Amino acid sequence: MITQIELSLPPYPRGFHLITQEIMNRIDIGSIEAGILHVFIKHTSASLTINENADSTVRTDFESHFNKTIPENAPYYQHTYEGPDDMPAHLKASTLGSSVTIPVTNGRLNLGTWQGIYLGEHRDYGGSRKLMVTTYS
Amino acid sequence: MITQIELSLPPYPRGFHLITQEIMNRIDIGSIEAGILHVFIKHTSASLTINENADSTVRTDFESHFNKTIPENAPYYQHTYEGPDDMPAHLKASTLGSSVTIPVTNGRLNLGTWQGIYLGEHRDYGGSRKLMVTTYS
Amino acid sequence: MITQIELSLPPYPRGFHLITQEIMNRIDIGSIEAGILHVFIKHTSASLTINENADSTVRTDFESHFNKTIPENAPYYQHTYEGPDDMPAHLKASTLGSSVTIPVTNGRLNLGTWQGIYLGEHRDYGGSRKLMVTTYS
Repeated sequence: MITQIELSLPPYPRGFHLITQEIMNRIDIGSIEAGILHVFIKHTSASLTINENADSTVRTDFESHFNKTIPENAPYYQHTYEGPDDMPAHLKASTLGSSVTIPVTNGRLNLGTWQGIYLGEHRDYGGSRKLMVTTYS
Repeated sequence: MITQIELSLPPYPRGFHLITQEIMNRIDIGSIEAGILHVFIKHTSASLTINENADSTVRTDFESHFNKTIPENAPYYQHTYEGPDDMPAHLKASTLGSSVTIPVTNGRLNLGTWQGIYLGEHRDYGGSRKLMVTTYS
Repeated sequence: MITQIELSLPPYPRGFHLITQEIMNRIDIGSIEAGILHVFIKHTSASLTINENADSTVRTDFESHFNKTIPENAPYYQHTYEGPDDMPAHLKASTLGSSVTIPVTNGRLNLGTWQGIYLGEHRDYGGSRKLMVTTYS
C-alpha cells in the first residue's frame, strides 16, 4: 500500500534544520506495521540528510564544514549568475542528497535514538521548499 | 506492483551527464498513480545524483569541484594500479551515491521543475554502464 | 510484500568494512523475483555505502581520504565534548549516507560484480551498531 503527499515547508534561514516533527505532523503512519518512509525534496539547492537530533551545535558545525569544503566564489565556477551562494548550494545538495529513506515499524519511524531528519537549506534566501512524502507498506 | 529492467547506457566521457530522458525512454510509468522509481548503477566508479537540468555549466562545475576535492595522485592512495583516475572515481561514487529514488505521481516522475538525473562518469574511459531500474506502486 | 529485521553488527574498528555477507547471512531473499533491499543504520556516527568488494586498499584509502577532508579538531567545531572523533563522524555519516537501497532479482542481490556494502565506522570505539533491513517485493 502506498500513500503520497506533497508538503510545503516554511522558509528556513541558510543552514541545517531539524524537520522530523514538521513531517510527522502532516502524515499518519500509525497503522503501518512494517514499511518505509521516503522523503524527497523537489529542489536542487537544498538537501535532506539524517543526523543528530539533540545538540544544535552539530547543525552549526555542519554549516561551517560544508561552507569551508564547498566554498563560495571558487575561481573555477562558471555557473555564477544566480549569485555566489548558488553553485555551492547545488554541490551541497548532491553531496548530501535529495532524499532520505527510513524504516517504519509498528506505527513509528524506526530511527535510532539520536537520529532526526535535517533540511539543508543552502541558499541565502531559499524560500518555501516542497517535499514529496511517500510511504509504502 | 514491482517492475524491474536493466538498461545499458552508451559510453559517456568523464564528467556529469543528464540521463533523465535516456531512462524515461526505456520505461513506462504512465499507469502509476503513486509510486517510486529507483535507479541503481552497477559500478563502483560512476555515480547517480539529482541536480539542475538546465544550465550545463552546473555539470561542468560539478566536474571541477569533485576533481579538486577528490584529487588524482593523493600521496596517501594505496589503490593506484588501475591508474590515477581509479581511486578518485571510487571516492566520488560513494560521496555522490549509487542510486536515486524519486516519487512517481499520476504517471510522471515527480521531480521539481529544475531537477534531472545525473550520471557521474568518474573514469577517463568508463565504457558502457549498467543501470537497474525498479518501479514500485 | 515487506519483511523487516533488526540486526546487530559486532563492534568494528574505525574504518571501512565489507558487510555484505554479514547481512546476507541473516536474511532470506531467495524467493524474491523482483524487489528491493533497504539497509538502514540507526546511528549518526557510522554510515553505509556501496563500493569495491575486492582490493582492501580501497577501504584503506577511503579512511585516509575522509580523515583528510573531514578532519578532527577543525578550529570551527563547536560540538567537541564527545571527543575529537565525534564531530567528524557526524559529518562523514551524512556525506556518505545512512542507508543503501539495492535491487533484488531472481532471489539474489543485483549488485555489480565488484560492488559490496561498506560499513563506515567513524568513531574510535563505536561499539555494536544496529541495522534495520527491509525487503519489499
